Amino acid sequence: MSLNDSGRFSFAATHGRPSPVRRILEFVKQPGMISFAGGMPAPEVFPVKEFAECSHLIRDKGEQLLQYGTTDGDPELRAFLAEFSAPRLGRQVTPDQVMLTTGSQQALDLIGWALIDPGDVIITENPSYMAALTVFQLHRASFRGIPCDADGMLVDRIPEVVESLRAQGKKVKMLYTVANFQNPGGMTLSADRRRRLAEYAAKYDFLVYEDDAYGYVRFEGEPVPAVFSFDPTGHTVYSCSFSKILAPGTRTGWIIADPAVITKMCAMKQNVDICSSSVDQALIAEYCEKGFLTAHLPVIISNYRRRRDFMEESMKKHLSPLGVTWVKPQGGFFYWIKVPGVDTDELVMKALEKKVAFVQGSAFAVEEGTCRDCARINYTYCSAETIEEGISRLADAIEEIKNKK
Amino acid sequence: MSLNDSGRFSFAATHGRPSPVRRILEFVKQPGMISFAGGMPAPEVFPVKEFAECSHLIRDKGEQLLQYGTTDGDPELRAFLAEFSAPRLGRQVTPDQVMLTTGSQQALDLIGWALIDPGDVIITENPSYMAALTVFQLHRASFRGIPCDADGMLVDRIPEVVESLRAQGKKVKMLYTVANFQNPGGMTLSADRRRRLAEYAAKYDFLVYEDDAYGYVRFEGEPVPAVFSFDPTGHTVYSCSFSKILAPGTRTGWIIADPAVITKMCAMKQNVDICSSSVDQALIAEYCEKGFLTAHLPVIISNYRRRRDFMEESMKKHLSPLGVTWVKPQGGFFYWIKVPGVDTDELVMKALEKKVAFVQGSAFAVEEGTCRDCARINYTYCSAETIEEGISRLADAIEEIKNKK
Repeated sequence: MSLNDSGRFSFAATHGRPSPVRRILEFVKQPGMISFAGGMPAPEVFPVKEFAECSHLIRDKGEQLLQYGTTDGDPELRAFLAEFSAPRLGRQVTPDQVMLTTGSQQALDLIGWALIDPGDVIITENPSYMAALTVFQLHRASFRGIPCDADGMLVDRIPEVVESLRAQGKKVKMLYTVANFQNPGGMTLSADRRRRLAEYAAKYDFLVYEDDAYGYVRFEGEPVPAVFSFDPTGHTVYSCSFSKILAPGTRTGWIIADPAVITKMCAMKQNVDICSSSVDQALIAEYCEKGFLTAHLPVIISNYRRRRDFMEESMKKHLSPLGVTWVKPQGGFFYWIKVPGVDTDELVMKALEKKVAFVQGSAFAVEEGTCRDCARINYTYCSAETIEEGISRLADAIEEIKNKK
Repeated sequence: MSLNDSGRFSFAATHGRPSPVRRILEFVKQPGMISFAGGMPAPEVFPVKEFAECSHLIRDKGEQLLQYGTTDGDPELRAFLAEFSAPRLGRQVTPDQVMLTTGSQQALDLIGWALIDPGDVIITENPSYMAALTVFQLHRASFRGIPCDADGMLVDRIPEVVESLRAQGKKVKMLYTVANFQNPGGMTLSADRRRRLAEYAAKYDFLVYEDDAYGYVRFEGEPVPAVFSFDPTGHTVYSCSFSKILAPGTRTGWIIADPAVITKMCAMKQNVDICSSSVDQALIAEYCEKGFLTAHLPVIISNYRRRRDFMEESMKKHLSPLGVTWVKPQGGFFYWIKVPGVDTDELVMKALEKKVAFVQGSAFAVEEGTCRDCARINYTYCSAETIEEGISRLADAIEEIKNKK
């Protein structure tokens, strides 16, 4: 009897969406590879000195830090976040509206547990963040993707989508959006569309899950108020994370939502891991209270802006002549490019031969068969120096594919 | 429209097993309360100085520590654990058989994801660890509880149980056991029964999940080899945790299993939180490599042994005269007492009036209606001084209930 006998593992473990990125990330380990594939911050931007300065807490408050924390997370950090988030959320929330999670990925799992029964529908942007799709799929959600333009999701398609799903007897439980610097699309949902989205959520009574992982990494222009700020009815679950504005190794994200939703997510967290690291949370609380978070944000922003600008120039030089198009992102981690006439599943393999990695559009497709000529390109991890070389290799790969035809 | 409308939340969030312990833990916050209810280590036993000594790593290796870690966890810590666990497991395992989790609670969720489809059956001890039951129930498992004596689960009942379930068309996917110092029962599965359990697992082709959270907290006698050591076929998933032997705030547990099982659990972990804290894992790796783990274990053991002895004496003095009986645990965190003729659901409320808390037997019952006259009493959290006072209050509560009848 083999352990891989059919029937040994669950449906989820046997039929889970295979991650194309995981396959790519194996190639990425090869020497000489330039990777635009992941979504990692640059380690040289981490505030190592400042964060290390907070580690005296382990000695000074060890008995408290090393004990089980509360499931909803460190009270000081939650109080800080209630205040920190207020400008963006349009109002000061109370601490019982804030909970901490093991990175923002865990928040996706928790909302899945709290909300989704098999077959329930989640509306998303098409394309959408693949790791959100994957975990929602574990919870047996179905998806409907709404197309986007440079101002984000075409929210006025929502009524038609909801009504047609209802007519089929399907329940729309949630709409998932990365409203700022979308992953993978890079575009930002306009204020006007955010207002209408909040109105539709109240009217059709579904929750909006607003994933703001990239919102604080804005290079230019004014921040757009969160969807949460347009919603007086408690239909919005706002999610953010320290992964992009401090460091992902601390695995700390936060959720801001109506207490009714927080209570359910918290009960689910109790079941799945009791609580997140109280060591990390206490160090982050100290880091924030000392003013390091706000002081270091401009450093991160200007560093990534420089890389984005470098990539913009490189793409103009090498990719524009090949007909490749894109919307310049005002923040975040990614370009989403369109390579007309090229199947990017095929392009990925060719590019890997040329020692440059990215993620093909199909990995983010919510509606089958879409995004085949698109690609996600990360600019935060590679040094400015390697960016142009990588883009030039990508151009070579595109040319070879085009010439073959 | 209220957010608590029926149909808003998932089946799991609406119908989850309510935690009697959570209710008790609210009372526990009252001033003057003596709590035997939780399962927390004593903070004064944490190796604060030694762990703090490892925190120089945040400064020295910050760029590495603060980045995303790998999903299966810090390679150095996994290598250490492969070696550390070898004596207990009867063989040296390879690093690809080890993965780290956010405490051992997350490992329960991950095996749930990897293995359980709705209706699949998990065999457990009756009584069993309630937080395991709760998370397995989220995954829609069914349970069959097997009775125990002072040597643990009556494993020779397994064939009959498996065969009768199969006759009903039900799939037994797993047997969950806390083989050392069971939670809540306190007893340890004998070596002979472990061998037979491993044989039944191979014969009937189910996995054994061996939860060894308490195994290193042994006060006397020789360690019993793990069920894993009797299993040459890869049917055992061994789980352990730093929560009881270092500190729970670091949220680090580990799994040792066949690579086929690790691969599935790891894929699931990628979905639910990408990776656990690389800060905590690196600090723990340093802590272990410096020899602090093995040096500090005797401190923990002798401290808790003293509390157990104190509780034993207090119970002999105050509870024996009332007909209360128990098996003296050779390690771990809990006494499991039998209070003949008393419904401990009722006793809990009376005890809380008298400012002493514990958990009633029914909270751990796998088979409905069992364990009604039992109770779980923790001795690791209260100081030796308060233990006698708490047991004396418990005796008063028992007497009052008995006299009322």
